[in-house]
Amino acid sequence: MKFVTAKDSRGSFVGLIDGSGTRVLPLAAAVEKMEGSSDFPASLKECIALGDAFVEKVHKLIDWVSSSSERAELYLSLDSVTLQAPIPRPDKNIFCVGKNYAEHAIEMGSKEDIPEHIMVFTKAPTTVIGPDETVLNHKEVTSQLDYEGELAVIIGKTGRAILKEEALDYVFGYTIINDVTGRDLQSRHKQFFIGKSLDTTCPMGPWIVHSSAVENPNKLDIQTTVNGEVRQSSNTENFIFPIEEIISVLSRGMTLEPGDIIATGTPAGVGKGFKPPRFLQPGDTVEITVEKIGSLTNSIEK
Amino acid sequence: MKFVTAKDSRGSFVGLIDGSGTRVLPLAAAVEKMEGSSDFPASLKECIALGDAFVEKVHKLIDWVSSSSERAELYLSLDSVTLQAPIPRPDKNIFCVGKNYAEHAIEMGSKEDIPEHIMVFTKAPTTVIGPDETVLNHKEVTSQLDYEGELAVIIGKTGRAILKEEALDYVFGYTIINDVTGRDLQSRHKQFFIGKSLDTTCPMGPWIVHSSAVENPNKLDIQTTVNGEVRQSSNTENFIFPIEEIISVLSRGMTLEPGDIIATGTPAGVGKGFKPPRFLQPGDTVEITVEKIGSLTNSIEK
Repeated sequence: MKFVTAKDSRGSFVGLIDGSGTRVLPLAAAVEKMEGSSDFPASLKECIALGDAFVEKVHKLIDWVSSSSERAELYLSLDSVTLQAPIPRPDKNIFCVGKNYAEHAIEMGSKEDIPEHIMVFTKAPTTVIGPDETVLNHKEVTSQLDYEGELAVIIGKTGRAILKEEALDYVFGYTIINDVTGRDLQSRHKQFFIGKSLDTTCPMGPWIVHSSAVENPNKLDIQTTVNGEVRQSSNTENFIFPIEEIISVLSRGMTLEPGDIIATGTPAGVGKGFKPPRFLQPGDTVEITVEKIGSLTNSIEK
Repeated sequence: MKFVTAKDSRGSFVGLIDGSGTRVLPLAAAVEKMEGSSDFPASLKECIALGDAFVEKVHKLIDWVSSSSERAELYLSLDSVTLQAPIPRPDKNIFCVGKNYAEHAIEMGSKEDIPEHIMVFTKAPTTVIGPDETVLNHKEVTSQLDYEGELAVIIGKTGRAILKEEALDYVFGYTIINDVTGRDLQSRHKQFFIGKSLDTTCPMGPWIVHSSAVENPNKLDIQTTVNGEVRQSSNTENFIFPIEEIISVLSRGMTLEPGDIIATGTPAGVGKGFKPPRFLQPGDTVEITVEKIGSLTNSIEK
C-alpha cells in the first residue's frame, strides 16, 4: 500500500495509489461513500496516529471498492492530482542519522569519521517540500549545496525504550528524503542544524509505502542521479546502524510518536566527496530511487 | 504583560498574570464576557500567531476589566491554578544556541571551544515540561545529567533573512528554559541532539514576558541555583552572539515562525565545569532566575 498526500482543485487529501500506479483513491471521499458518513482524518499524519484501525479501515475499503466495478469511478487519475510530501508539515523536526554508511563517512573526511555511536541531528519542519517541487538555490547563503539520497522511516506508534527486537513493529512505513545540505554552513556552524535547515531542503516522497510491503528495510538498493548521471549507488545493507538500532537508541530516553520521520543516512557519492567537489548548480535535477519504495525527483531553482 | 498557559479543573487556558502577581485573568473567558462571544484561541501559540491583533485585544480587555470593580471577579487566584509550560507542545524542535558565553565555552574544554560562528542544535518538542514539574532522572541512560539556565526568545511573526536591525521586532517575548543535558550522551553521539532530547529535559516558564517589558534582552542578570547554592551567575551582556545576531543568522535561509522558541545559551557554572564535576542527583532542585522575567524551578525525580 502506497499512501499519498495529494491535492487537486478541491484541496488536499489523503489517497491510496492503486496497483497499476496510475490512479489514486481519495480515502475520505471513498469511506464516505462506503459508510454514508466519514470522520476520516484530513491529514496522513492523523491517519497514521489512528494506528491499526487506520490500516484495517483501508483494507475494508479496498475490498468494498473492488467488489463492484462501478466503484472504480471513485479513483482519480494520478495525472489529475499533484502529489505533495506525504507529511507536508511534520509535528517536529525530522530526525537524521549522520554518517551511517562507512564509505560516505570516509569521503567526508577519513576512516576516523566512521562513527562508533549513532549521530543524530535534525532538519526544521519548514524544510519539507513534495515530489517535483523546486529546491531554492539559496545562493545568498551557500555556494556548496549538496544532495543526500536517503531512505526515511515513518514511525507508526508511540514508544520509549523500544527494544531492537520489536523496533520494526513501531514503523508505519517508508519514504524517500533528499537531505539537501549547505556544506559550507554545515562545517562553519559545527553542529549540523543550520546547514541542514534551509527552506525547501527536505524533498520527501513520493509516498509512504506501508511496512507490510517492505520485508527487510535493511536490504534495499538506493541510487541517486544528478541530471541522469549516477552519483550514489549502494544498498541499505551497508548501514553501520540498521533501522532497528536507530529506533532503539533514539527512543532510549526520548518518546517516539506516530508521524515521526527518521532519515537513515546517505551513502557515498555526495558532491562534496568528489575531487574537485561537484556541488549542485541552479537547474540541476536530482532523482533518488529506493528499491520497493519508488523515485523522488526535484530540481534546483534556476 | 506576563502570559501563561494554565490549567484548573475545567481544563487548560491562556491567561494573563496581573500586576500583583497573585491573580491570573483567563483570557478567553474574559473576552467572552466583554464581547458576548469569543473566538479566542485555545493555546498561547495560536494567540501569538495572531500578531498585533492579539496584543491589542489584550490591552482592550485590560482596560475593560479595570474600568469596573465588579469585573475583578473574572480573575482567578494564581494558587488555584497550575502553570504549564507557556508553549507546552511547540510545533517544531526548540532551537538552542551552543556555547554563547565565552566562559562556559572554556569550562567545557578550552579557549579553542569559543565559537567563531553561531552553533545551533535542537531539542525535541517531547522534552518540554512546565514550572515545578519533575525532570526524569533517566538513570538508565545517563549518569551525567546537567543543568543549563537560559533566557529563551519566543518569535512573534514570520520572517526570513531578517536584518539584525529589525530582529527584535520579530520577538513576541521571553521566557526561561533549563536546557537539561545528558553530558555523556552529548559527547558520545557527537551531534548534541540525543543528549539534549531526553523526555522532560526542557523545563520552560513560568510565563512569557511580552517584549514591550524588556527593553534590552542583551542585558539581563541570569542565575541558576542547585538546592539553593548559586552555580551560574552572569548577565546576558556576556553573550558572544546577541539576540539580534542569533535571529539574523538563523533566518538567513530558514523561515522563522510565530511560536518558535530559541534558547540563547548558558553561562559558565554548569555541573560539568566543576572539578570534579557536579552533575544533578535524584531529588535535586534547580532554580533559574532571569532579571525582568522571573524564576523557573524544577526538581529531579528521586
